Amino acid sequence: MKRIRLTVAYDGTAYCGWQIQPNGITIEEVINRALSRLTGEDIAVIGASRTDAGVHARGNVAVFDTMSAIPPERFAYAVNTVLPEDIAVVKSGEVPGNWHPRYAESVKSYEYRILNQEMPDPLRRKDTWHVSFPLDIDKMRQAAAYLTGEHDFRSFCSIHTGVKSTVRTIFSLDLDREDAVIVIRIKGNGFLYNMVRIIAGTLVDVGRGFYSPGEVRDILEAKERKRAGATAPPQGLILSSIEYGRN
Amino acid sequence: MKRIRLTVAYDGTAYCGWQIQPNGITIEEVINRALSRLTGEDIAVIGASRTDAGVHARGNVAVFDTMSAIPPERFAYAVNTVLPEDIAVVKSGEVPGNWHPRYAESVKSYEYRILNQEMPDPLRRKDTWHVSFPLDIDKMRQAAAYLTGEHDFRSFCSIHTGVKSTVRTIFSLDLDREDAVIVIRIKGNGFLYNMVRIIAGTLVDVGRGFYSPGEVRDILEAKERKRAGATAPPQGLILSSIEYGRN
Repeated sequence: MKRIRLTVAYDGTAYCGWQIQPNGITIEEVINRALSRLTGEDIAVIGASRTDAGVHARGNVAVFDTMSAIPPERFAYAVNTVLPEDIAVVKSGEVPGNWHPRYAESVKSYEYRILNQEMPDPLRRKDTWHVSFPLDIDKMRQAAAYLTGEHDFRSFCSIHTGVKSTVRTIFSLDLDREDAVIVIRIKGNGFLYNMVRIIAGTLVDVGRGFYSPGEVRDILEAKERKRAGATAPPQGLILSSIEYGRN
Repeated sequence: MKRIRLTVAYDGTAYCGWQIQPNGITIEEVINRALSRLTGEDIAVIGASRTDAGVHARGNVAVFDTMSAIPPERFAYAVNTVLPEDIAVVKSGEVPGNWHPRYAESVKSYEYRILNQEMPDPLRRKDTWHVSFPLDIDKMRQAAAYLTGEHDFRSFCSIHTGVKSTVRTIFSLDLDREDAVIVIRIKGNGFLYNMVRIIAGTLVDVGRGFYSPGEVRDILEAKERKRAGATAPPQGLILSSIEYGRN
């Protein structure tokens, strides 16, 4: 028996998120089916991040156990032949049998993309949030500085059932403008439910002048969800990578 | 009666190209329907570029005549409310009644995007050509230099019925690498049928070593379609803009 780790990329547009659920097709389910077909076994992967409906990934991680003779690093190529074109495994390899993608320490990186121009762009409608009013990126950067570091992010969390602590560390939170697209790049040791999207929504409120940059510190200290901005829509969010210290 | 010019952006994935045809839905048709619904008139636009199935645009141009009281520059906003989200009018304005988007002199700019990495990226499958073998961008640039300027591009044209001359001028042809994506940017006074896609296919053949850069000059001089590389797939192509000298 071998434990295989997959690095998974997907366009989340057509899916009800990662995690299997009764109504609607999910990414986890499609990967399970593809691996089961490939191996002839009944495969159920364990995912690192249960991304929401419409959210994308370039580097989500999943593991599964198999008796298959397919060499671990060849699984990526093999499974892509049976996956639909909106899901791809970009890397595969063997990990120790007790390695778990959610319990192993990791650094997660996300991108949130805002199309900041008056008119819509049909080519970017599925991977950006279209914000038609002008945004002051310098003010957004000032606000972002308050969020960097170790904080209790309770104000930036939709639901916190089952979470022991709402303290997380953001290692970096950078904003860049690439033509009409503002890219928020955020790296941390873990993220609460909807945390990146609430941060994006709040930074947009700063950019349009609804909050001053300093108010973001107050929002953080309030530890109340209702104080922060709206949850930004899912299609702007991409799980870029999950880096593990070992393996 | 006013003649209105529209600048049109679209994701071409779902359409059988620009031009109305008996089988399958086209962009021209969807725009005609939206404008007819908006004005209560029977509108038929004249397009500048009849892009192929799967080809995208950020700046195609179309005109139509109307008695509508909608101010010319407000048509963009009005028609977007009745267009599907994969087509958008990004600008509108009045032009003289005899102005024609195909007969007026113009500079057309295209981008062709190549995703050059071993593994696929589901998020770029609809706006790039995935080329998994390594490409030598320096050799592609050397080859591109032979194509710049005024030449007979007969070797880079699929069909030339109805075209008086196959001589065209390429003002610039630049290649850039942006992460894993090679972007070919090409600007000219006009393009023959499939010309940009055949140039892209030929440059990829240079990048992988099938042709030397100097052979592209020979291909150009041969004036035979079969000498050039394959027509690159449509989804990598974007009509970026059409600039007119006046109006």
